[in-house]
Amino acid sequence: MRSVYVAGIGITTFGRLEYPLAEIAAYPAMMAMKDAGLTDVEQVYVANMGGGRINHQTGLASAVVDTLSLTPAGAEVIENGPASGASALKQGVLAVGSGMYDVVLVTGAERMREVNNLDATDFIATLTHPLSEYVYGVTLPAHAAMFTRLYMAKYGVTERHLAMVAVKNQNQAMANEFAHLQQNITIEGILDSPEAMTNNPYVAEPLRFFDCCPVSDGGACLMLVSEDAMAGVDRPWVRLAGVGQATDSHAVAERADPTELTAVRLAAERSFAMAGCGPADVDVAELHDAFTILEIAESEEAGFFGKGEGHLALEQGETALGGSLPINVSGGLKGRGHPVGATGIAQAHEIVTQLRHEAGARQVDDAAIGFTCNFGGFGNNVVCLTFVRER
Amino acid sequence: MRSVYVAGIGITTFGRLEYPLAEIAAYPAMMAMKDAGLTDVEQVYVANMGGGRINHQTGLASAVVDTLSLTPAGAEVIENGPASGASALKQGVLAVGSGMYDVVLVTGAERMREVNNLDATDFIATLTHPLSEYVYGVTLPAHAAMFTRLYMAKYGVTERHLAMVAVKNQNQAMANEFAHLQQNITIEGILDSPEAMTNNPYVAEPLRFFDCCPVSDGGACLMLVSEDAMAGVDRPWVRLAGVGQATDSHAVAERADPTELTAVRLAAERSFAMAGCGPADVDVAELHDAFTILEIAESEEAGFFGKGEGHLALEQGETALGGSLPINVSGGLKGRGHPVGATGIAQAHEIVTQLRHEAGARQVDDAAIGFTCNFGGFGNNVVCLTFVRER
Repeated sequence: MRSVYVAGIGITTFGRLEYPLAEIAAYPAMMAMKDAGLTDVEQVYVANMGGGRINHQTGLASAVVDTLSLTPAGAEVIENGPASGASALKQGVLAVGSGMYDVVLVTGAERMREVNNLDATDFIATLTHPLSEYVYGVTLPAHAAMFTRLYMAKYGVTERHLAMVAVKNQNQAMANEFAHLQQNITIEGILDSPEAMTNNPYVAEPLRFFDCCPVSDGGACLMLVSEDAMAGVDRPWVRLAGVGQATDSHAVAERADPTELTAVRLAAERSFAMAGCGPADVDVAELHDAFTILEIAESEEAGFFGKGEGHLALEQGETALGGSLPINVSGGLKGRGHPVGATGIAQAHEIVTQLRHEAGARQVDDAAIGFTCNFGGFGNNVVCLTFVRER
Repeated sequence: MRSVYVAGIGITTFGRLEYPLAEIAAYPAMMAMKDAGLTDVEQVYVANMGGGRINHQTGLASAVVDTLSLTPAGAEVIENGPASGASALKQGVLAVGSGMYDVVLVTGAERMREVNNLDATDFIATLTHPLSEYVYGVTLPAHAAMFTRLYMAKYGVTERHLAMVAVKNQNQAMANEFAHLQQNITIEGILDSPEAMTNNPYVAEPLRFFDCCPVSDGGACLMLVSEDAMAGVDRPWVRLAGVGQATDSHAVAERADPTELTAVRLAAERSFAMAGCGPADVDVAELHDAFTILEIAESEEAGFFGKGEGHLALEQGETALGGSLPINVSGGLKGRGHPVGATGIAQAHEIVTQLRHEAGARQVDDAAIGFTCNFGGFGNNVVCLTFVRER
């Protein structure tokens, strides 16, 4: 397979956006074309989950390619729940890697705030097992809460560890102009003060309000190109070197040990194997912290820390900016927001920004290898990507 | 890019199915695995349009891969409106062609009869332009009716020609055990008799009831494999040799001449160029006759007949079984039915069946090269495939 490079990137502000879904996908794509200085796009992938249900729009890829004046380029929507973004990047790698296309846009978008938070939560819950989970009222916060309880019992994770992730990521978001949340929080304010139970109530015990990512609108795009096309681009050479994916039982209750995120472990292994490196080589990572517990668990399953030791590394500041492996310096899903179709691409956007050394106040020194984990379902379909700066 | 072969195929009966959406996708995939004698699947693509809205199910690919006990294989949903099926086959070609995967299932499914016909029509209309078409109440039958009027005025197509397509395809469906409609019709019964206006009322003048495909549930699957994997399969060697795609303006009114289906012409040209053959080499074709007029127009744009001459070829029986180019001997969308995500794969299923010479009463003699046209939006995103029997 041919090598695949990131020629351009783009992203919208995350939060509440007042323009149509197709434009949320198109705007970062225009930024990516401008960034790369390339417009002869042959294929557009659009990562999106809620168009049909939330926005009453299907055939979104056709709308986007037309909005961008890129017809007759090919175009498809890729859906893999919250991992739609990284799945779309995977298709982009196959499209360029196969030799069929040289210049491919992979853009992701979601316009979730068209409905209220309860409807958004119900919509996201439609990715659970339709017959053994969804019909009984399980939501993603409920899944995450049950997972957290098991993790607390087995590994000694506490609510304080969860709050440390929330504080770290939400405060990092203030160094990211595109992030949804721009509000400084402290452990004192969300956990230890008399007001904490009011400021930070339980959503699904033991998960509190500040343990859950916000519901966001947003879009993000990467332009993926062949080596020949990259030769004409005046940007650092960042290669999308590793793509790893794995699925797990759709119903969480069917897993032998629900505290094991087997799909994360396998997807990370596959991504590293393809890229020819390992977790110890990674300088900066974006993990899928839709709930604070997930950052801790994924940091273990991806191989950065031993199983059950992620919260200890967090305590020691290893995952903060300046630590041995900064995680979610962009703010993560927690701080940047989580427009589901865009998230996997926003993670990649951050990694490319870091590997280009253009991340400003949140730059990880000398970052050369970056990693993303995009977590679909409740761990039933995970895509991990490894990026390498070549020059 | 590596060559890609069809190792196995499967299809459900089209019509009303009483089992869940994920099983409608999984059942033909099991048939395809059995047909090929291969189960070590590495990747599953699921073509689907309505899961999120009609069936309240997202992350469908994760459900399907689990239903098939194929975890940890990769899995994504591909959506491109009514051309989702052929778009998913395109991703399968990239996946195998790139060298990343050797054995890929591409299955398509739709469970549309969970809602009534009016809701289904409204849902399909969400693929039109959201700001210049959908909000004004345009539906696909309305688009097709306006297109038909222009075609009638410009080329002399009559309601009788439309009825000839309906009769040809719906009666062919009776030779296809998987087809939705199993009811013989005649020109007399649907056009010339006193009862015709009752039996066959206008849906969107000049299109009548029998000019429109039914709303169907159904699933279809192809297993795509590399040459190495095909060597272990005891089935005829049918190669998916050509993939062509093109988009056009999302809003039909923006086209310079709305009677020109530019995306069909380009997609067909690209598919033939990749396969190294041309329209004159094709022995059997499946065109996207969601409305009878589309079979006529696509038969011209794909290069089988001159522009404006498709209805003359139809009159002369050239597109009937036994004619120079049999079109939709499966019954087409009109007779077999149109579960949107499954349709492009069902078309391919028919072509592979024909090239294997296993089509029984509807077999086209000595078929060696076959062609499909899967028409998304109202011609805004079209995917054409060319299949070649090698041995």
